[in-house]
Amino acid sequence: MKRRLKIIDRILDALKDCETFAIGGHMRPDGDCIGSQLALAYSLRERGKKVVVWNQDPMPEKLAFLDPRKLLSAPRSGRKFDCVITTDCANYERLGAICDCIEDRGLLINIDHHGSNSRYGNINWVNARSASTGELVYQLLKQASWPITPQIADCLFTAISTDTGSFQYPTTRPATYHAAAELVHKGADIARICNEVYQSFPLSRVRLQKHMYSSFKLTQENQVAYFWIRRRDYARAGAVPDESEGLIDHIRDIEPVKVACLFEEIEPELTRVSLRSKVPAIDVSEIAGSFGGGGHQSAAGARIPGNPRTVQRSILKSIKQALLAANGSAS
Amino acid sequence: MKRRLKIIDRILDALKDCETFAIGGHMRPDGDCIGSQLALAYSLRERGKKVVVWNQDPMPEKLAFLDPRKLLSAPRSGRKFDCVITTDCANYERLGAICDCIEDRGLLINIDHHGSNSRYGNINWVNARSASTGELVYQLLKQASWPITPQIADCLFTAISTDTGSFQYPTTRPATYHAAAELVHKGADIARICNEVYQSFPLSRVRLQKHMYSSFKLTQENQVAYFWIRRRDYARAGAVPDESEGLIDHIRDIEPVKVACLFEEIEPELTRVSLRSKVPAIDVSEIAGSFGGGGHQSAAGARIPGNPRTVQRSILKSIKQALLAANGSAS
Repeated sequence: MKRRLKIIDRILDALKDCETFAIGGHMRPDGDCIGSQLALAYSLRERGKKVVVWNQDPMPEKLAFLDPRKLLSAPRSGRKFDCVITTDCANYERLGAICDCIEDRGLLINIDHHGSNSRYGNINWVNARSASTGELVYQLLKQASWPITPQIADCLFTAISTDTGSFQYPTTRPATYHAAAELVHKGADIARICNEVYQSFPLSRVRLQKHMYSSFKLTQENQVAYFWIRRRDYARAGAVPDESEGLIDHIRDIEPVKVACLFEEIEPELTRVSLRSKVPAIDVSEIAGSFGGGGHQSAAGARIPGNPRTVQRSILKSIKQALLAANGSAS
Repeated sequence: MKRRLKIIDRILDALKDCETFAIGGHMRPDGDCIGSQLALAYSLRERGKKVVVWNQDPMPEKLAFLDPRKLLSAPRSGRKFDCVITTDCANYERLGAICDCIEDRGLLINIDHHGSNSRYGNINWVNARSASTGELVYQLLKQASWPITPQIADCLFTAISTDTGSFQYPTTRPATYHAAAELVHKGADIARICNEVYQSFPLSRVRLQKHMYSSFKLTQENQVAYFWIRRRDYARAGAVPDESEGLIDHIRDIEPVKVACLFEEIEPELTRVSLRSKVPAIDVSEIAGSFGGGGHQSAAGARIPGNPRTVQRSILKSIKQALLAANGSAS
């Protein structure tokens, strides 16, 4: 607790002297990233600061309601900032195209909840026990006694809700629910948020789901489920790669499945692999790590070059080994 | 607040003098019903009371983990109880087969959160602002200062989580999140609960989903989505009709869809129709009502005899009319 207050106070002290801000998030930004960025941006603007909010990749349709004034934009070069804040971004490279546009800066503040964070900032607030970066931003605002407007409450509720799988992931702590309670009290509109975020799938996404259900495979006595999305599948569905987010959960949630895996064709010889584990004894971040990726015990990923069939074979082999080790240790 | 404490105190006073209890729930019991029943049962047993827990219909597979000692059973006649408590049951008839087995009783206590509750008990604690009956039982235990064991925390967390759609329904209040926080603090195992309740679809259910995605139709410029489940589809999936629960939400959640409709073949000449509306201007209980069914504005159903093609045509025609009326009134 003391340590946390100390780092928050350091951040708040630093912010005082800065006037111009860029707030950057990771490639393919999700609800936690964007909710955290916008909540910070709204708060700093209220304090009279000049703020830009940048992401390499565009705003997902379902989160657009958080940004009615379209603060969020693609990065532009030639700007100078007293302070750059990154949210939910485990390493500097994941900022993508933002990197080249924030070279002329005073301070870099890195706020994140990924244990694998490479601590690339001048100030690093990395709390891997926090279920979301949104919860950290919430603590920052509380400690600063900055008012939580309904708009800020919407952003932070969205961040926390999406990064806990709607308060279901084991990372969800009592403090997470208390934060949600206060955000709803402060005006977070859960009917609207949940409608936009969870109950409004575009037809393109529905076509991807159809593709998934008609093509997923089960192996290892139904303990492993996997499917492919190739570029032609995206094209047929009229979908962008962003829209695959969360699809993997559908096959993870099949009762006998312990490990779920999604292979996405980025280029003919480059595959993005997403992994989910439903059992504590299988750490998919270890599997992803051995292919140059990373993540958490229960959710991880990697980008793997090479022949797609070889990639699939290698990944499924690693999963099988992890499964054997886990089943062996359980018996 | 005062009124609430008063009714809780009346209940606690009444419980003191009772030794034998039956705790009953509604037909086709859900997570809120069973979680509330079991939490009460565990608490009363801790107080040395004799308790039976009865439901007409069997425990859903996904909730069985809440009842490892199999307290829950079918009702048996010829028993006498100082007190019968019903949870989550809006009227006496919804107790089903329990009714005949609780005639020889002292007191009847009715704890529920349905606004339509008929207040059939000697003491009625009906709070329609509460998102779940589980939240009421939580308040009762708190007020009584009865310890919330991890097992009780599991039951109440399951009750609250399932009846709020995992903290998403607009009924979810700040107090709901605070209750969830304390239940997790008291040992509710959210990893296990969410795994059992939300992340363990049997393969048979997954096959039904596959059937739905490969067969659903869109009409009226994508404002209406519908699909059929025929008896042969259940047979092919190895599924029972219960497993269609919630399937319709997947097509309701398609962005342009305003009304979703599921046709289920009960017999060759008898169709069960389920309807969902996503817009306040369309009241599907009116459509269902005109076919002899009923429900709420946003969720309703009917069982319709006759040729299935004719049933489909009539229902889609009614939906089209409602849509035209709604679009007309909006313009």
